[in-house]
Amino acid sequence: MISRFPGLTPTRSRAVVHDDLVLTVAVAPDPVSASMYEQSVKALARIDESLALCGSDKSRILSAIVYIVDITRKGEMNRAWDEWVDTSNPPMRACIGVELEPPHMVEIVVTAVK
Amino acid sequence: MISRFPGLTPTRSRAVVHDDLVLTVAVAPDPVSASMYEQSVKALARIDESLALCGSDKSRILSAIVYIVDITRKGEMNRAWDEWVDTSNPPMRACIGVELEPPHMVEIVVTAVK
Amino acid sequence: MISRFPGLTPTRSRAVVHDDLVLTVAVAPDPVSASMYEQSVKALARIDESLALCGSDKSRILSAIVYIVDITRKGEMNRAWDEWVDTSNPPMRACIGVELEPPHMVEIVVTAVK
Repeated sequence: MISRFPGLTPTRSRAVVHDDLVLTVAVAPDPVSASMYEQSVKALARIDESLALCGSDKSRILSAIVYIVDITRKGEMNRAWDEWVDTSNPPMRACIGVELEPPHMVEIVVTAVK
Repeated sequence: MISRFPGLTPTRSRAVVHDDLVLTVAVAPDPVSASMYEQSVKALARIDESLALCGSDKSRILSAIVYIVDITRKGEMNRAWDEWVDTSNPPMRACIGVELEPPHMVEIVVTAVK
Repeated sequence: MISRFPGLTPTRSRAVVHDDLVLTVAVAPDPVSASMYEQSVKALARIDESLALCGSDKSRILSAIVYIVDITRKGEMNRAWDEWVDTSNPPMRACIGVELEPPHMVEIVVTAVK
């Protein structure tokens, strides 16, 4: 069975669950004037919300792909990540410099289990 | 058991299935002179074909990562996506601006279930 | 049950296993002065190591996302890939041009099964 949790538009879901597998994506919900650090904090908080909707939490994350728009500012995202992560259960993570639709600077895709 | 469906080269598969999990990737098969919108339409049609080979279909997609070469043209890809998607079963989706090997402008990676 | 294999920092894992699903990421462990070809060879060798830690191997890879910093040098990565891959069991693969933290030029995310 597949469960889908509505996103900002009807053509995408913020999270999808199949059996115990959870896939979710987040950006900062209010990105304007937020620094990369602040956007990272907000996007990670949004991941927490989505995982809770799905019956999971950050201790159950398997992997995260973090997309940021300026790799020279990876340190800001790392600071938010290190403050947020469950260090008893660290996910596999890749951080990649890409283009995102402005004003977004950070987008995070997470694979977790319930 | 893992099933693999041949791609354009012997060192990659266009789709791989394990149990009920389906992983597939597509670009437009004939990208030359196609706009980003047209490449998106063709790549999504190729996803449909691959899902059918695997015994799945777009109503069973969990997530899609859409790579495009110019984030300012995301609207063209969105138009193709919105025309194509099963709105009763919207996937999780991220759209990321990257470099692809020309003339490709769109590449889509899908996780689905049978 | 989730098993996690420590990475270079305590806030990330080099590999995570849940049931028979294996997620792992690698860069070249010693990237300085290495060409894109050499980094690709080293990153793929690191993937082999991680898969072995998890009780898997390259014949059991479902998919790979290969991030490289210069898409015009994709041929170098392809050469390393083609020398390395198990041609009896080719994964689904996408190769994407992105920014990575220097001196890294190649990063590879793999989904496999045990």
